[in-house]
Amino acid sequence: MAGAKTAAGNFFEDFRLGQELAHATPRTVGAGDAALYLALTGTRFALNSSDEFARASGLPCAPLDDLLAFHIIFGKTVPDISLNAVANLGYADCRFLAPVYPGDTLQAKSRVIGLRENANRQSGIVYVRSTGTNESGETVLDYVRWVMVRKRDEAAPAPAASVPTLARAVPAAALALPAGLALERYDFALAGSPFAWEDYAPGERIDHVDGVTIEEAEHMMATRLYQNTARVHFNQQAQAADRFGRRLVYGGHIMSLARAASFNGLANAVKIAAINGGRHLAPSFAGDTIYAWSEVLERWEIAGRRDLGALRLRTLATKDRRAGDFPDKDAQGKFDPAVVLELDYTVLLPRRG
Amino acid sequence: MAGAKTAAGNFFEDFRLGQELAHATPRTVGAGDAALYLALTGTRFALNSSDEFARASGLPCAPLDDLLAFHIIFGKTVPDISLNAVANLGYADCRFLAPVYPGDTLQAKSRVIGLRENANRQSGIVYVRSTGTNESGETVLDYVRWVMVRKRDEAAPAPAASVPTLARAVPAAALALPAGLALERYDFALAGSPFAWEDYAPGERIDHVDGVTIEEAEHMMATRLYQNTARVHFNQQAQAADRFGRRLVYGGHIMSLARAASFNGLANAVKIAAINGGRHLAPSFAGDTIYAWSEVLERWEIAGRRDLGALRLRTLATKDRRAGDFPDKDAQGKFDPAVVLELDYTVLLPRRG
Amino acid sequence: MAGAKTAAGNFFEDFRLGQELAHATPRTVGAGDAALYLALTGTRFALNSSDEFARASGLPCAPLDDLLAFHIIFGKTVPDISLNAVANLGYADCRFLAPVYPGDTLQAKSRVIGLRENANRQSGIVYVRSTGTNESGETVLDYVRWVMVRKRDEAAPAPAASVPTLARAVPAAALALPAGLALERYDFALAGSPFAWEDYAPGERIDHVDGVTIEEAEHMMATRLYQNTARVHFNQQAQAADRFGRRLVYGGHIMSLARAASFNGLANAVKIAAINGGRHLAPSFAGDTIYAWSEVLERWEIAGRRDLGALRLRTLATKDRRAGDFPDKDAQGKFDPAVVLELDYTVLLPRRG
Repeated sequence: MAGAKTAAGNFFEDFRLGQELAHATPRTVGAGDAALYLALTGTRFALNSSDEFARASGLPCAPLDDLLAFHIIFGKTVPDISLNAVANLGYADCRFLAPVYPGDTLQAKSRVIGLRENANRQSGIVYVRSTGTNESGETVLDYVRWVMVRKRDEAAPAPAASVPTLARAVPAAALALPAGLALERYDFALAGSPFAWEDYAPGERIDHVDGVTIEEAEHMMATRLYQNTARVHFNQQAQAADRFGRRLVYGGHIMSLARAASFNGLANAVKIAAINGGRHLAPSFAGDTIYAWSEVLERWEIAGRRDLGALRLRTLATKDRRAGDFPDKDAQGKFDPAVVLELDYTVLLPRRG
Repeated sequence: MAGAKTAAGNFFEDFRLGQELAHATPRTVGAGDAALYLALTGTRFALNSSDEFARASGLPCAPLDDLLAFHIIFGKTVPDISLNAVANLGYADCRFLAPVYPGDTLQAKSRVIGLRENANRQSGIVYVRSTGTNESGETVLDYVRWVMVRKRDEAAPAPAASVPTLARAVPAAALALPAGLALERYDFALAGSPFAWEDYAPGERIDHVDGVTIEEAEHMMATRLYQNTARVHFNQQAQAADRFGRRLVYGGHIMSLARAASFNGLANAVKIAAINGGRHLAPSFAGDTIYAWSEVLERWEIAGRRDLGALRLRTLATKDRRAGDFPDKDAQGKFDPAVVLELDYTVLLPRRG
Repeated sequence: MAGAKTAAGNFFEDFRLGQELAHATPRTVGAGDAALYLALTGTRFALNSSDEFARASGLPCAPLDDLLAFHIIFGKTVPDISLNAVANLGYADCRFLAPVYPGDTLQAKSRVIGLRENANRQSGIVYVRSTGTNESGETVLDYVRWVMVRKRDEAAPAPAASVPTLARAVPAAALALPAGLALERYDFALAGSPFAWEDYAPGERIDHVDGVTIEEAEHMMATRLYQNTARVHFNQQAQAADRFGRRLVYGGHIMSLARAASFNGLANAVKIAAINGGRHLAPSFAGDTIYAWSEVLERWEIAGRRDLGALRLRTLATKDRRAGDFPDKDAQGKFDPAVVLELDYTVLLPRRG
């Protein structure tokens, strides 16, 4: 239906292994984005909230929230990678490198690192490594995602299957620290919690308690703020004919709500250093109330640093179900049906010194 | 009911031909407005999205979206011009002059250029030329609108009818280019489309494909961002007694949604230079899904410029109806009932050189 | 249910007379907050809207809205003071001191100035004086609030009752004027009303006319913008089991809507200097339409100033009921059931000179 001038997105057979895609819509971020992100998620981490706190931590000013940067870079990839997606299957090996500061201009590119047609020949899985850069050419983040993409023509030949090998987690030695970051003078009271890196132990589970109900206006504003154009989020008339009958909430908004909720229990996890893996287990809709809980998977020292350390966390978000009893997967690996997100990521916290 | 301190707005018999009205509420615009506009409309034009892209185009930084500036200036005129309006009938001869940059302070004035009482003597049509200026006194935009305004007193005498003659379109020679704008080094890939001015031909029609459903919170936030106080947008209790029973969406929000949708097919139309005419054909409400399509009316060279050219476009927005078959008016001039907006405007695009 | 790492808030028996609480989450405010506040409330006061108007008034640039600053400071106190509140009972003796400018970083502390257990021993009233400061250590505002807080354990011993004596109003001599503020060259037309301080008389009542209907997305975004974490505003699943069955609108959002509405009749009340007292008389919910009216209580000269004066106002907000007949309390002191807010505060207006 769309004419020749209109972008129809790529279909599975359009992708080639090793293909480089330069994504459109460079974006200068700033105080407006930070305020909107705060109003849409309720985040409270001190490093992103206060220029003074950031300066006391060795940074020039408060960087933008790590997930805000992630969503903006992700959004740029949508028109080229996932406009014809059936499902967004996962993320891995995401490293947060140069922090994003107000005034930075972000752009994104992707490289196809894997392709595998599905047995039904109607679609295939595309693996891309996407990279966000700032106006100085520094990489701000880099991640792999895989997505199931429709074929335009079932009869189209598919490339030989090639599936990348992905590490289970970004190792401690590969984590990047923001230039200048120094947490020797970290003010725990001001940040909102007395608990330092040393106080968390692998296996520990934390209920983040507070639930938040999502409205249509909120998730659409968030998704537009990221210039993410995936149609399932915006068009109720089209979605009414879909199997869910509803607009789907961008999965990244759930990530942000879970991260914001995690302040209650992890207030000093002031910086996301890596996302090791992430899966959206079920869709969320306006009206759903989102809760979250976290498990500490690993506790890592950072070589040469006494001021901070890393925790590898696993945060699960649920909908319409409190998380106080830590809903999870069962022995067969089947998730509690209320779980909508499983996110494996690595955060930096101050050490008590 | 309102006391003496409260502004009741002007009625038809309060206007005089040649009358000058200085509008209230000067407004400094900035990064917060740009971010909110983006989150409320999903706009993606590179010149407004990226300071770096704007600098590569010869501008000091990314200007605010042209329609954002239009809506803010329009909003200032509402308390004096259209608080007692029955209907906003049309726009014409709108030129975008000095770009609006973050930090600029906008104010507005209007001059009454036409008056015509309706035959029923209950109301009349007021024609005004409204002008927005920045803190340096430069005109940022200038336009004519006409609006049907109630009379306070049907018996009040009306001035002799005087209807201004309005050009059908701002001619190419009258278009203003932003100081410094130079598109020789335009990056088509980064902007999101390979299509240059030369690639569009008069008569060409483009379906912008994507529909977006409006929420009450969204249109009210947009309208308040413009400090537009027209009551029909905000008060559900009062509107429940109105013929529609609903809050009306500010027509300018539909203009913005149509312009944002037009990115898909017109991504390089980076600057609105003029609005030649505009009509709201039916009201929109929360829950409506808005689609848009465009027709290229004319293609103009700009004297002395090889880097850019102008297209005169006609964009129609529909509600709850896809635009792939270009819903329009019939041979009798009667519009498809799904059409809510017809906007005739002129945009600047890079030439391939 | 919450684990040891999670903040459960203080209960009545946790407070001690004279106790000092340093609140978490320092916050740098800026253009994004101002734009969002405008979009959420529709405020139009010229001093906050225009850098140029502010400069002509002797200030370096437009300060943030006084109530925006109040809500941000208030929000910081919630996790320590009112997470286990049954009801927020009142405010008093709030003085606005140093103006808040974009780039300022705010933090807050509180001192317990009164405690009184309720007769049922299930809860008690906590009186705190909360203080907001900027990054230079200047106090930006200072106020008393009292709140009914649950006991964790009914059997816990309570401190001896101690109730502070609070002035009925901040006296004129105690009002702080922003450094530099000079209204000799005040532009009444640009500000939106010809009425100066001299034009208002004690006893005068003003209907602010315009009603605005609240949406869930709006009040939640506003409350999150203030990093106010009170659970009753966000979690529909939990609220469904509450006596109202609905999310409650943060009372401060009603204060902001009433203040924004008061522009129509009080456009030149450009600065709130004090809040003498405030009470939320009934909860508001999404879907409610809020109206407001004001009574002039007192008119005060400011010593040594011919350019400005103060008015002590009493503004009442109603829901789903127009305010043209000034709904108030009856002879027995019982309020009209539509009244949701009574706010006694002091504003600065230009004098005609």
